[in-house]
Amino acid sequence: MNIVALAGGVGGAKLAHGLTLCHSERSEESLGQSGEIPRHSAARNDTLAVIVNTGDDFDWNGLRVCPDLDTVTYTLGGLANPDTGWGVAGDTFECLGALQKLGQEPWFRIGDRDLATHVRRTVLLAEGRSLTEATSIITRALNIRPAILPMTDDRFRTLVNTDAGVLEFQDYFVRRQWQPVITRIIFDGAESARTTPQVIDALAQADAIIFCPSNPFVSIEPILTLLPSPCLGEGAGVRVAVSPIVGGQALKGPAAKMFRELGIEPSAFAVAQRYQHIITHFVLDQLDRDQESAIQSLGLRTLVTDTWMKTIDDRARLAGEIIEFIQSE
Amino acid sequence: MNIVALAGGVGGAKLAHGLTLCHSERSEESLGQSGEIPRHSAARNDTLAVIVNTGDDFDWNGLRVCPDLDTVTYTLGGLANPDTGWGVAGDTFECLGALQKLGQEPWFRIGDRDLATHVRRTVLLAEGRSLTEATSIITRALNIRPAILPMTDDRFRTLVNTDAGVLEFQDYFVRRQWQPVITRIIFDGAESARTTPQVIDALAQADAIIFCPSNPFVSIEPILTLLPSPCLGEGAGVRVAVSPIVGGQALKGPAAKMFRELGIEPSAFAVAQRYQHIITHFVLDQLDRDQESAIQSLGLRTLVTDTWMKTIDDRARLAGEIIEFIQSE
Repeated sequence: MNIVALAGGVGGAKLAHGLTLCHSERSEESLGQSGEIPRHSAARNDTLAVIVNTGDDFDWNGLRVCPDLDTVTYTLGGLANPDTGWGVAGDTFECLGALQKLGQEPWFRIGDRDLATHVRRTVLLAEGRSLTEATSIITRALNIRPAILPMTDDRFRTLVNTDAGVLEFQDYFVRRQWQPVITRIIFDGAESARTTPQVIDALAQADAIIFCPSNPFVSIEPILTLLPSPCLGEGAGVRVAVSPIVGGQALKGPAAKMFRELGIEPSAFAVAQRYQHIITHFVLDQLDRDQESAIQSLGLRTLVTDTWMKTIDDRARLAGEIIEFIQSE
Repeated sequence: MNIVALAGGVGGAKLAHGLTLCHSERSEESLGQSGEIPRHSAARNDTLAVIVNTGDDFDWNGLRVCPDLDTVTYTLGGLANPDTGWGVAGDTFECLGALQKLGQEPWFRIGDRDLATHVRRTVLLAEGRSLTEATSIITRALNIRPAILPMTDDRFRTLVNTDAGVLEFQDYFVRRQWQPVITRIIFDGAESARTTPQVIDALAQADAIIFCPSNPFVSIEPILTLLPSPCLGEGAGVRVAVSPIVGGQALKGPAAKMFRELGIEPSAFAVAQRYQHIITHFVLDQLDRDQESAIQSLGLRTLVTDTWMKTIDDRARLAGEIIEFIQSE
């Protein structure tokens, strides 16, 4: 089964990680006791590609920082900081401290090991590689098997129009801790940016497309904006979205707050409604069981389960349940 | 007394540090018991400017690294690693380790705190500041009072023609541990590079110019190449060189080996001979006392003393002796 996941940062990375755990379990099973590789090897048939939002990317001291790409990379590479979800586990902040002594305001906390990724990526981009190539080089060096695909190699910047003015995304998200009230989200560069051949290929080969429980407005929407419509049309196979809203709240980040500020009551139903014309299946949390029939009335098949990924086992369990759900037609 | 020091890396930085220690002692003395600032304040009268070789500079992962400037900066800022002479004391190498995992050969060991300097400088240069301005911003942030002046803001790269081919300086010096045999030193860019107005001003106001015990070929010569001849002419006041060769050996680095490979027996006398037309005074180590009269016969006044700066006290003592020596006319 070829799976494509659409992901933003932490929530998306966790589910993508769960999918790799499922896949590898399934791969081992399919090898059988003898250890012989079957004719159609699991590695060949069970592919995972994660298409990642790059609207949050920005330049930090001349270095290209791609927060969502890196969160997915570190999570799949087993390097992620389990406490924050972003950054590298056990990272130190010596360079940042020294930059602070040189007068820099340290609101974006880049650790020393994390920094290496940005340095390497910036060099690769300066050498003329695309972001897709740079990401592939970095993920291969970290022995990550799934393809981590930036949604575009072109410039695309998510801006937020707020009561504090138009803000760059990281200014809004990290520096101001998503406290300004948003009135509009702007995808700067969206008109000229194109998605990549690698994204188009992955979607063309996908048996299932999973919308990870990422922010619908600033993680998933930027990706959708770039996809040619046939990618998510009738022939595209199963498309399942996992609600990032649980009990009216976002498990992380400003998704629920953004729904409210845009005049919509945050709920699993509101998420389903948002995606209804491009998905076939929907996964909601058991806390939102009362919304199941309303979501079904949108024409979607539903799975109600525990969607809160607190542990690594939770990631694998949820991913396994989703795969079973979409195969159970 | 306005002093200008010409310096390369570690040896030059140590003597420059000694000069700041002397100067501050003298400044405190001149303030007297009352603490009143005299009409001509010490801060105004006792200035120190260090003109630093930039021929060793190179680009590392897209960041501008200036080894000699940084060694002088860290030494005067009290940040230098006392064991190596270069780098930052207590620095960590997390970013370098992570870069290595991403496939980078880690022959040039840049620590995490050191890295901040290169990141900041690269940003300042990208913003259109000159290297002189960038250095000034960095040294002011580190509360360093003497002016640390790059010899040029232009591109100037020291290359060495060796039995292993033409090598970039850091490739020769760090990666190959100065083992290749040199046949010629090439100053790439010297024809078009110009020194700076700040260097010209400092030299014009200098009561004394001190050639620090730095490598004559690859630390001092690049600076001299750029100086208009009147800077070191008759009207230029006292010019004193401190021998970097002691007992036929360089205390650090390839100076003695380079002398030999260029067909000259390394000695304090050979150093004096090299500088004889542009200096007035010469400082040699007590180990080389037997060369004093030969050096005097070149028309130079001499000071014989212990020039090996093992401790910080040694730096201040040597600097004090040199100042006394050049004032004793």
